[in-house]
Amino acid sequence: MSNILETIHSPADLKKLSMDELTVLAEEIRQRLIVGVAKTGGHIGPNLGVVELTIAMHYVFDTPTDSFVFDVSHQAYVHKLLTGRESQFHTIRQPGGLNGFMLRTESEHDSYGAGHAGTALSAALGMAVARDMSGGKEHIVALAGDAAFTNGISFEALNNIASQTKRLIVVLNDNAWSIDKNVGAIAEYFHKIVTNPTVSSLHDRAAGLLERFGGKAVRHVARKAEEAAKGLIGPGMLFEEFGLSYFGPLDGHNLPLLIETFKFLKTQNKPVVLHAITQKGKGFEPAVTMQKKFHGLGPYNAETGETKPAGQKTYSEIFAESLTKLATMNDKVVAITAAMPNGTALDLFRPVHPKRYFDVGIAEEHAVIFAAGMATKGYKPFCAIYSTFLQRAFDQIVHDVCLQNLPVVFCMDRGGLSGDDGPTHHGLFDISYLRSVPNLIHMVPKDEDELADMMYTAMLHEGPSAIRYPRGTGPGTPVKALPVEMEIGKAEVISEPEHAEVAIFGLGAMLPEAKRLAAMLEREGVAAAVINPRFAKPVDRACVGSFGSKCGLVVTLEDHVLAGGFGSAVLETLNDLEIDVPVVRVGWPDAFIEHGKVESLREKYGLTAEAALEKARPYLVALGARRMVVR
Amino acid sequence: MSNILETIHSPADLKKLSMDELTVLAEEIRQRLIVGVAKTGGHIGPNLGVVELTIAMHYVFDTPTDSFVFDVSHQAYVHKLLTGRESQFHTIRQPGGLNGFMLRTESEHDSYGAGHAGTALSAALGMAVARDMSGGKEHIVALAGDAAFTNGISFEALNNIASQTKRLIVVLNDNAWSIDKNVGAIAEYFHKIVTNPTVSSLHDRAAGLLERFGGKAVRHVARKAEEAAKGLIGPGMLFEEFGLSYFGPLDGHNLPLLIETFKFLKTQNKPVVLHAITQKGKGFEPAVTMQKKFHGLGPYNAETGETKPAGQKTYSEIFAESLTKLATMNDKVVAITAAMPNGTALDLFRPVHPKRYFDVGIAEEHAVIFAAGMATKGYKPFCAIYSTFLQRAFDQIVHDVCLQNLPVVFCMDRGGLSGDDGPTHHGLFDISYLRSVPNLIHMVPKDEDELADMMYTAMLHEGPSAIRYPRGTGPGTPVKALPVEMEIGKAEVISEPEHAEVAIFGLGAMLPEAKRLAAMLEREGVAAAVINPRFAKPVDRACVGSFGSKCGLVVTLEDHVLAGGFGSAVLETLNDLEIDVPVVRVGWPDAFIEHGKVESLREKYGLTAEAALEKARPYLVALGARRMVVR
Repeated sequence: MSNILETIHSPADLKKLSMDELTVLAEEIRQRLIVGVAKTGGHIGPNLGVVELTIAMHYVFDTPTDSFVFDVSHQAYVHKLLTGRESQFHTIRQPGGLNGFMLRTESEHDSYGAGHAGTALSAALGMAVARDMSGGKEHIVALAGDAAFTNGISFEALNNIASQTKRLIVVLNDNAWSIDKNVGAIAEYFHKIVTNPTVSSLHDRAAGLLERFGGKAVRHVARKAEEAAKGLIGPGMLFEEFGLSYFGPLDGHNLPLLIETFKFLKTQNKPVVLHAITQKGKGFEPAVTMQKKFHGLGPYNAETGETKPAGQKTYSEIFAESLTKLATMNDKVVAITAAMPNGTALDLFRPVHPKRYFDVGIAEEHAVIFAAGMATKGYKPFCAIYSTFLQRAFDQIVHDVCLQNLPVVFCMDRGGLSGDDGPTHHGLFDISYLRSVPNLIHMVPKDEDELADMMYTAMLHEGPSAIRYPRGTGPGTPVKALPVEMEIGKAEVISEPEHAEVAIFGLGAMLPEAKRLAAMLEREGVAAAVINPRFAKPVDRACVGSFGSKCGLVVTLEDHVLAGGFGSAVLETLNDLEIDVPVVRVGWPDAFIEHGKVESLREKYGLTAEAALEKARPYLVALGARRMVVR
Repeated sequence: MSNILETIHSPADLKKLSMDELTVLAEEIRQRLIVGVAKTGGHIGPNLGVVELTIAMHYVFDTPTDSFVFDVSHQAYVHKLLTGRESQFHTIRQPGGLNGFMLRTESEHDSYGAGHAGTALSAALGMAVARDMSGGKEHIVALAGDAAFTNGISFEALNNIASQTKRLIVVLNDNAWSIDKNVGAIAEYFHKIVTNPTVSSLHDRAAGLLERFGGKAVRHVARKAEEAAKGLIGPGMLFEEFGLSYFGPLDGHNLPLLIETFKFLKTQNKPVVLHAITQKGKGFEPAVTMQKKFHGLGPYNAETGETKPAGQKTYSEIFAESLTKLATMNDKVVAITAAMPNGTALDLFRPVHPKRYFDVGIAEEHAVIFAAGMATKGYKPFCAIYSTFLQRAFDQIVHDVCLQNLPVVFCMDRGGLSGDDGPTHHGLFDISYLRSVPNLIHMVPKDEDELADMMYTAMLHEGPSAIRYPRGTGPGTPVKALPVEMEIGKAEVISEPEHAEVAIFGLGAMLPEAKRLAAMLEREGVAAAVINPRFAKPVDRACVGSFGSKCGLVVTLEDHVLAGGFGSAVLETLNDLEIDVPVVRVGWPDAFIEHGKVESLREKYGLTAEAALEKARPYLVALGARRMVVR
């Protein structure tokens, strides 16, 4: 039973605690996280890693006057617990409950929302400059993981910080992981710092001195480290070159040391970076030994860390298995991920084709250009990037891949509503932003086997293509031993009764709803054809034209926003063909959709057969009249 | 009259020349550039800066077997002159002539196209990894300006290079400029290297030794510099931290030194960076003294550098003047550019409001997040970014600005066909990629005065907005002394004859064509209303609904691709309103449009009143029938 934690209704309450009480509080928070997230699912590992950091920040600074900007902000659970949301914490990531990320509309303490990596330094710099211009005194603290420095935006921000403000505190939360083990030169650089013997000794000395002499000694050591850095022999060269003063590395779980250090940094009249070493998952053995699994996950056993045995294969797994098969067939096939080997399931591909697997860090833009470069030399790169993250590489898709008509394949996992993660992770825009790009093919499979066939088709196709598939599992269709090539731009007619009066196009995950709608219409005496469009681009003009001409109503269903989406493409096609038929479009409205269960959000926003029937009903009367004439 | 240059039909011819002849060739190329670009317009300054670098690269390496990747590739004119395109050089940037950038379809020597900054290292790494996998021996050389390192993608690439290949040559072409003077920590870092006395002496020593003892000595000095760097006291720390071996800085106009150095680097079995110091505009006095003007420009006098006196104000200038005025009215207004103070005309704003002007480098993603950060503190940031470059910040527009509903204003210059620069610079996708983003308003002014009003409206609006306006001049409408707030989502009816049978929506720059079409229809006895839509989002539903109901035909004209564009938004609106009326959509087709004159390309692709009339003609007959019934 939490005792101290329950007394914290705002950061002000925290400041009344003694150091011993703070230490107890840290332990209480850890237990609360382990037990709470076991039920709700969520980003347990990252939050267990920042318990002391977050306590120290709230102890020293004063939100909401001061602003905290958390990179990605999946590690903001502790922050939520300390800023008046303890009693709601059991609702995190639950429908109607707390969001799993920082959310400005949720609390005045959430000064900046996030969900995609690498944005914290830029946003914090914007705040710092605004503060300077207004003559404000408040502090801006950005907390970013080491993985954020594999993303280029962090460097764009670093390039600007020193010339634009004298007061900004960057906390580098270094746990050597993003979701998977970090990759590349930056990870090695941080590792080199941490394992440097001079640096370690300074670090140990700071901790020892603090115990014996209190904060002053620590500040002295911090200054020493700073001088070392300035002498170009210290660890923080990279940051120093960018004009930030480097402090660290220090133990990110040593609460007194963190508090003293933040108090010191608060007084600095220059931008600083504090390098804190933390352990992801600290305090929960399963999360420490299985860091990747416990980065973010569904419910688990709070004692053992056990999760439910995997059931039906996810689309991600089908993707990875299919790609493994394609790579075995064709030695030009390579796989690229932007730090998501687990989420995309490419960690299944890696052991089979280790030399054809590339994790480039959280660097979607680089991933796409790197793929384009490989494609110029005859390779067939498959970039596995979530729909929402691929938004980051839009220009590179246009400019590097499609303009040069290079055969890169974009496999967009989490295409459609992603559910519990909320609006930062829904993949609801990819048809709109990709449909206008010349040369690109956009495919959406109805099931697992079709995903495999589309990947094979993309492999054979000589230009660029994209495939979107939803989070989680599909209908469970077994995948054929050998994939089959599809005709580009050809839809599949699933069922076509004689004298069909309605044509229902059910894109991808919405095909089951299309079938249900057809069944419901049949019960009302209206014959409806069901079509699996397969291609959001190019739309099957012959199919749309033929059904548009012979039916009295066309219905489109898509797990995507309506603006510019698949239904819009059907409207354009009918318009081009000069076919005059009413169209009912079903999809997500022009609004950011909150987190929640996919099924209930679909119901709420009218992405069901029932809602489609209601939208179609006014036209059914006309169909009746038409039927009288036709028959 | 060029003599040697005319004998160079491929890089092989270059290799036959003596060092003296190469030096003469460099001079010939310079003259050719100065005189040639005086007629065609183009990126004269950057190309004058890389004459020796390009000659040296082609002398030492063998394209197309070896691959050169030029960042942005506006500095590829010398490369074009040396790779069999000398006789066509007078056609550069002319309709049907050579493209102003690298283009894979133009020559086998153009291994990678570009136009947006920061992509060269990523593309080159993709090629290098592909080469390694295929067991190839060819060299990959990336040439990137110092400005490319203000862009995050370069760092994403740097993070991956050392762990993924042992053979990649990066040439840092350091002239301290992007288009304007470079900004931020990276620029200072490079400056520090160049002005470091130890480094200068090494550099002078290399040049001196070469003169006396030839290449071997230079290699020795290069190694010395390398050792210095490894001893953590040398200049290239930043690159060394990323695992690249640093060589330089050296004089980028010393041809023998460059050739020796490239020969040496060719033998290295590790990724290297060569830091070459060049002078933008070298050899053409006006281009040296006016670097910004001569980065890229229209025709000029080859003797004096004089250009035609500025005539009518451009949209960019109107934008900058209006923003200056708004900033005077409202102290929360700030201006942000991503290294384009000249192109966006913000250099007119800067002297008036120097503290509210931010040039963040070629860092569109950072620019947008930085703006969002400022907006959380009550500021009203205007981000002036070309339509095509804003593609780079699509995710940040969605995730940082619109999801948080922050009042950032995107001023998209070069919205529409940009003309001579070609497909990498046309701004033809912004309605499609922005229209699906919730909370965002998208405006398109019909003239200069309306641009000013829209900016004022955006300033007063509490959410995010975007305004697109074309390159160059508008109709020349005088701007009112004080701007007027517009009603969000309200179109302007320009003319509405009694019993209008056709409604013509002419978006922005297409409004004059809409008026011409109306006049042509009138001559055929068909009354047509002309509407200035003003808002691509939200579309004026009342206006579209009213004209859609009372007219027998709707025509939309837009300087944008048809897929997902404004016409598509009108189709969606009519569909939502259940109004059944034929729509003729006029805009750019689903293809990348080549470079050329805007007028002739519009004619070629049917973006004229004449072409619209042809598309509308089939419906006019039906209108006649309708008229019989209605009247």
